[in-house]
Amino acid sequence: MAKIMAVNAGSSSLKFQLLKMPAEEVIAQGLVERIGMDDAIFTIKFAANDKAASNENVEVKGSKAKFQTTTAIKNHQVAINMMLENLSDLDIIADFSEIVGVGHRVVAGGEYFDKSVLVNDDVLAKIDELADYAPLHNPANALGIRAFQKLLPNATSVAVFDTSFHQTMPKENYLYSLPYEYYEKYGARKYGAHGTSHRYVAQKAAELLKKDLKDLKLITLHLGAGASITAVKNGKSFDTSMGFTPLAGVTMATRSGDIDASLVSFIQGKENLSNDEMLTVLNKKSGLQGISQLSSDMRDLRAARKDNEKAELAIQIFVARVVSYIGQYIAKMDGADAIVFTAGIGENADWVREEVVARLGYFGIKIDADKNEGCREEADISAADAKIKTLVVPTDEELMIARDVQSLMA
Amino acid sequence: MAKIMAVNAGSSSLKFQLLKMPAEEVIAQGLVERIGMDDAIFTIKFAANDKAASNENVEVKGSKAKFQTTTAIKNHQVAINMMLENLSDLDIIADFSEIVGVGHRVVAGGEYFDKSVLVNDDVLAKIDELADYAPLHNPANALGIRAFQKLLPNATSVAVFDTSFHQTMPKENYLYSLPYEYYEKYGARKYGAHGTSHRYVAQKAAELLKKDLKDLKLITLHLGAGASITAVKNGKSFDTSMGFTPLAGVTMATRSGDIDASLVSFIQGKENLSNDEMLTVLNKKSGLQGISQLSSDMRDLRAARKDNEKAELAIQIFVARVVSYIGQYIAKMDGADAIVFTAGIGENADWVREEVVARLGYFGIKIDADKNEGCREEADISAADAKIKTLVVPTDEELMIARDVQSLMA
Repeated sequence: MAKIMAVNAGSSSLKFQLLKMPAEEVIAQGLVERIGMDDAIFTIKFAANDKAASNENVEVKGSKAKFQTTTAIKNHQVAINMMLENLSDLDIIADFSEIVGVGHRVVAGGEYFDKSVLVNDDVLAKIDELADYAPLHNPANALGIRAFQKLLPNATSVAVFDTSFHQTMPKENYLYSLPYEYYEKYGARKYGAHGTSHRYVAQKAAELLKKDLKDLKLITLHLGAGASITAVKNGKSFDTSMGFTPLAGVTMATRSGDIDASLVSFIQGKENLSNDEMLTVLNKKSGLQGISQLSSDMRDLRAARKDNEKAELAIQIFVARVVSYIGQYIAKMDGADAIVFTAGIGENADWVREEVVARLGYFGIKIDADKNEGCREEADISAADAKIKTLVVPTDEELMIARDVQSLMA
Repeated sequence: MAKIMAVNAGSSSLKFQLLKMPAEEVIAQGLVERIGMDDAIFTIKFAANDKAASNENVEVKGSKAKFQTTTAIKNHQVAINMMLENLSDLDIIADFSEIVGVGHRVVAGGEYFDKSVLVNDDVLAKIDELADYAPLHNPANALGIRAFQKLLPNATSVAVFDTSFHQTMPKENYLYSLPYEYYEKYGARKYGAHGTSHRYVAQKAAELLKKDLKDLKLITLHLGAGASITAVKNGKSFDTSMGFTPLAGVTMATRSGDIDASLVSFIQGKENLSNDEMLTVLNKKSGLQGISQLSSDMRDLRAARKDNEKAELAIQIFVARVVSYIGQYIAKMDGADAIVFTAGIGENADWVREEVVARLGYFGIKIDADKNEGCREEADISAADAKIKTLVVPTDEELMIARDVQSLMA
């Protein structure tokens, strides 16, 4: 059976998951943080084996093993090399060559990529070129691809784009009401993000509903630290809440989501901020954190809401924005069969699901409180008389990446 | 019977309407354009009378008379003086003192004003202070107020704010997901606009529906060169599409409406634009004009759409954005009793109404094609089996201003 690796390389981090395909079994998952620092942290989680028991850096709990070490890691190449060496040392792989395919998450695919592709020089050049749209991410993604190509020259290398699922949006939904030449000259349009997740949960939702995805109108709610909502019509992304960048849309952990564009220069003027500093405010200091002045984490806000007006307000604003997008997409798709909760908040926060759905009664969206409570797994949590279903589907972008690699290897 | 003047002073223009109250009869309406220029244009329309027939600057058509002249008009004071002199010369008023009240449209009222108020020094100081929120409008509005106070010192002076109707919005709808201190320090929040129009058409809609406004959920669609959509819940503004400034919301004649805020610095960088130049692009070169590269006027786009892909696209984007806000507000108000079309496009473009409503079938919003066709007057154009009504209500901001003046004089 083939081993395929799904990789998500950030500017100073590297997340990976090793899967046995087509069994879709996770063999190991790992994370390298603080790449470039002397105290980088390297972690691999895997099924406990003989090697685990004898390795001083491994902690074993029942059938689960966790390897962790803090050390200097100069760059991505070093991180990846270290990762492969450790997978081998820990007997998770017998040989590097067992990894026959590597799928890389790439944030911006622009209009070049409407699906996952085998990486070649042209693809890499385009990923480099698109750095303009994702200055923090695409260069890191390209770095990851090149590093793996050096170490695993025989493995199939695949790029999986966050944006490609959204390339099916009709022009009336992806074009802004800006001078048209900005679209032609600079590609200023809506690209969306989280495409791999929306695509995955839409497929799962169709299975759960026992219907053909092509016959469904779904609203997929990827609610995590980053949050985006997609109208999936007949299996295709029809509209999505993130925009030219992942800043737009609903309130996020630290991102503002939609604001009046006039506020950008107004606040820059008041606070004497450069364009870059203003982007940092919008991306890192806004959202739940900015409103609450307490925390970017929904769990903290929930714990504080009773006595903290701003924590309560942040929750209410988040819920209102989600409700608003659901209404918007029901209108734009002329109906919906189901709304689908996924990602950190969507999968785990039953109380957020409850508060969102409580505001959607007019549409006949209703949940069964018992089914919702504590649910963290794939489930239909709709009330019996719901007109539009409510589903929970844990997302799995790594699996989707592995599937794409496998399908391109075939 | 009292004569009351409604005034809308722009930076280089002055619009006015003289009404007999409480009869609500328009006696005259006028416009001064290009104030500050040597070729300013001065126009008054009124009911033909003896003086009209003998004035060489007056054109008479049946019962209608139109006075027009082109001349140097140095400033607002001169324009207003000339207006009063002409009203007197043309026998529209016998004496300046007949005008017992003047109501002034003021664009930004911030959080100070939740209704129309009698102007005093404190009010004027606040209008000046709020210039930050409406740099082109508030100073001109204040100029108009001061000029009238000099010429008509005994008339009651009233300020009617574009924003005051929206002061009832709940915090979860008016607060952006930005650092909270920007709200506290700079009043960075949603204020909305077109409040006088939304308030007027909501009242008229309730009359038309023969219901108490307090029992209704309405979505008022002010669709003109500027366009805004308001969720009016129980007679109060609950949410609105314009934001901190009138830039936000739906696609407008030349304004972009909602965009990803990241695009501001991206485009500034590409085009080497200053913050002010970028605001000019967003306010004056975007919207229908920007997309179509043809015209900011919906009538031109309609005429061109068959052979012009971008004209067609501009129309589709406009319609999609309107539909999207309707869905949003149905969700946020948990239902709606009626949608209400008003302003230039809303009142006159039956075909736009048709295209908007055609996309809202899922909500049971349906129109009677015969009732819609050519309708430019107050009417219920819903189909017999419509679940949510569709109304047309011509707006009348001047009348609303005159009513506010009268009620504050009482």
